[in-house]
Amino acid sequence: MIEKKEKYNVAVAGATGAVGQKMLEILQERNFPVDRLKLLASARSAGTSLEFKGEQVTVEELRHDSFEGVDMALFSAGASVSREFAPSAIKSNCVVIDNSSAYRMESDIPLVVPEVNPDAIGEDPGIIANPNCSTIQMVVALKPIHDKFKIKRVVVSTYQSVSGSGQKAIDELKSQTQELLLGNEPKPNVYPHQIAFNCLPHIDIFLDNGYTKEEMKMVNETRKIFNDDSIQVSPTTVRVPVFYSHSEALNVETEGPVTASAVRELLSAQAGVCVVDDPENNLYPLAIAGENKDEVFVGRIRDDISRERAVNFWVVSDNLRKGAALNAVQIAELLIVHP
Amino acid sequence: MIEKKEKYNVAVAGATGAVGQKMLEILQERNFPVDRLKLLASARSAGTSLEFKGEQVTVEELRHDSFEGVDMALFSAGASVSREFAPSAIKSNCVVIDNSSAYRMESDIPLVVPEVNPDAIGEDPGIIANPNCSTIQMVVALKPIHDKFKIKRVVVSTYQSVSGSGQKAIDELKSQTQELLLGNEPKPNVYPHQIAFNCLPHIDIFLDNGYTKEEMKMVNETRKIFNDDSIQVSPTTVRVPVFYSHSEALNVETEGPVTASAVRELLSAQAGVCVVDDPENNLYPLAIAGENKDEVFVGRIRDDISRERAVNFWVVSDNLRKGAALNAVQIAELLIVHP
Repeated sequence: MIEKKEKYNVAVAGATGAVGQKMLEILQERNFPVDRLKLLASARSAGTSLEFKGEQVTVEELRHDSFEGVDMALFSAGASVSREFAPSAIKSNCVVIDNSSAYRMESDIPLVVPEVNPDAIGEDPGIIANPNCSTIQMVVALKPIHDKFKIKRVVVSTYQSVSGSGQKAIDELKSQTQELLLGNEPKPNVYPHQIAFNCLPHIDIFLDNGYTKEEMKMVNETRKIFNDDSIQVSPTTVRVPVFYSHSEALNVETEGPVTASAVRELLSAQAGVCVVDDPENNLYPLAIAGENKDEVFVGRIRDDISRERAVNFWVVSDNLRKGAALNAVQIAELLIVHP
Repeated sequence: MIEKKEKYNVAVAGATGAVGQKMLEILQERNFPVDRLKLLASARSAGTSLEFKGEQVTVEELRHDSFEGVDMALFSAGASVSREFAPSAIKSNCVVIDNSSAYRMESDIPLVVPEVNPDAIGEDPGIIANPNCSTIQMVVALKPIHDKFKIKRVVVSTYQSVSGSGQKAIDELKSQTQELLLGNEPKPNVYPHQIAFNCLPHIDIFLDNGYTKEEMKMVNETRKIFNDDSIQVSPTTVRVPVFYSHSEALNVETEGPVTASAVRELLSAQAGVCVVDDPENNLYPLAIAGENKDEVFVGRIRDDISRERAVNFWVVSDNLRKGAALNAVQIAELLIVHP
């Protein structure tokens, strides 16, 4: 853990991005004990300023010597930036919480979702990786089911919002939609095809096995977080024309005799989960309702009619919050707990 | 089969609806041998006229005596209209092709997808049911896989367009989207929640087992079409903000040693299927590309990495064409084939 102090010097690398700004928002909301706040970004963004607790903080250029005297740095500026600058932070005795994919699958680096595997953080942390958004909301919902019934296999189809691709994708969905309503043919830019009024079964690059990198993240990160390579995951990740929050349809097979009612009870007691499951009154998790909320919402919980020991359910969460910035701040909170 | 003639008297009941109009379009396109065409609708729509082969045809009120001298009637005016008027058509010796859910699960009524089970139509047909849109595109893709490897279980998540709910839902997606882009809060009307920039895990009504009627259609109709009650289906049906074409993510488990390459080969040779599967060049089926096409498009074909004897793939088709009007006209074509 980090040496006990009353307040900590915190850096945010990638502060001007969609997730970086959410990190600032959440550090404030949760009243994280910040002493000095350092906002870091590329040379292009340096000099601009962002508000934190009512004060304007000037964004500085991210450099190798940016981490002197900093206790912890939250990185969200892409994998190559993390690879270049996280080692410099470590050399300055600054703990790194990295939201990029750079270190997630390194065997000696913990990949942490605080509700699932807080103990993966060792006594002397260096880099701690934040999982991918689509993985985080899934494993929070799977956690109590795995503990009680042992998960064998998950078939998951995702309905992912464009905010996962950053501000320019949010702008693209908006402008494409406007163009189409005017009867014009929009030109795709962020995505290879039109995203407005369409679904793209393609997130991140394609790998040799025919799966996308996003899909393989859901497979490999899930196993690492649960520290259980026997969990099988069969994913299809799809981008949909939604601005915020990812939705996921899960089919979960277990070793033990799982039932929908047991799952409903387990998830109702699970930290970080909010069960919304009253179909008679048209209540189930919705992307627009998950926006700007902290919880992982679960509903449509039902026994699988196709086989024994399996359930289906629907999971929604704000991909920029629990899927990224909130999870990173929750990791920071774990680092300053001293028994 | 229907008595051999050069041309047939054809009625379309529900002619002014979204599917009814597609039926007219497709009868023209495919040059179906129509002698007299009778357009039938509710009293409210009677008197309007629709174009067929360059001529204006006046819409008449659907009545019990509408079917005198008519050889075949294509119904698409909802289940209650079919239940009321199809028996009158039968009494007039008019064969009924019914696009509603009214008769689909009646044991003595064939449920037909021409590429899958044309032989289900007996020698002396009365009512022939057209399956649900989400089922049709799925079974066309499953057909050669079931023939070769015997399907045990399908886990399917759908991404269904609003046109499946008719013209008023198309209008609602458009107007809600416009309102939201202007910063206004739209009021849902057709759907219980906002559909613009959102995903609704809710199609048709909820049943006692926690599944929706749409989901159970995919289970029960699939078994009936393949005449095989051992096929297990675990569905989640979801409405997405797309105007036309349904997309589906399928995980298919078989008894035989299925592989992605075998499936790709089988589907490439399957009537009614177009394989679009070149991820390296960002080519996979898309809702916007499926619009107004006849084929069922299949791509993202890959071995399931979570278990042996299973594959994943992505299926797209125009729900108003192959999912409804085209399939009905193809059934009509089967009825006039005489060896």
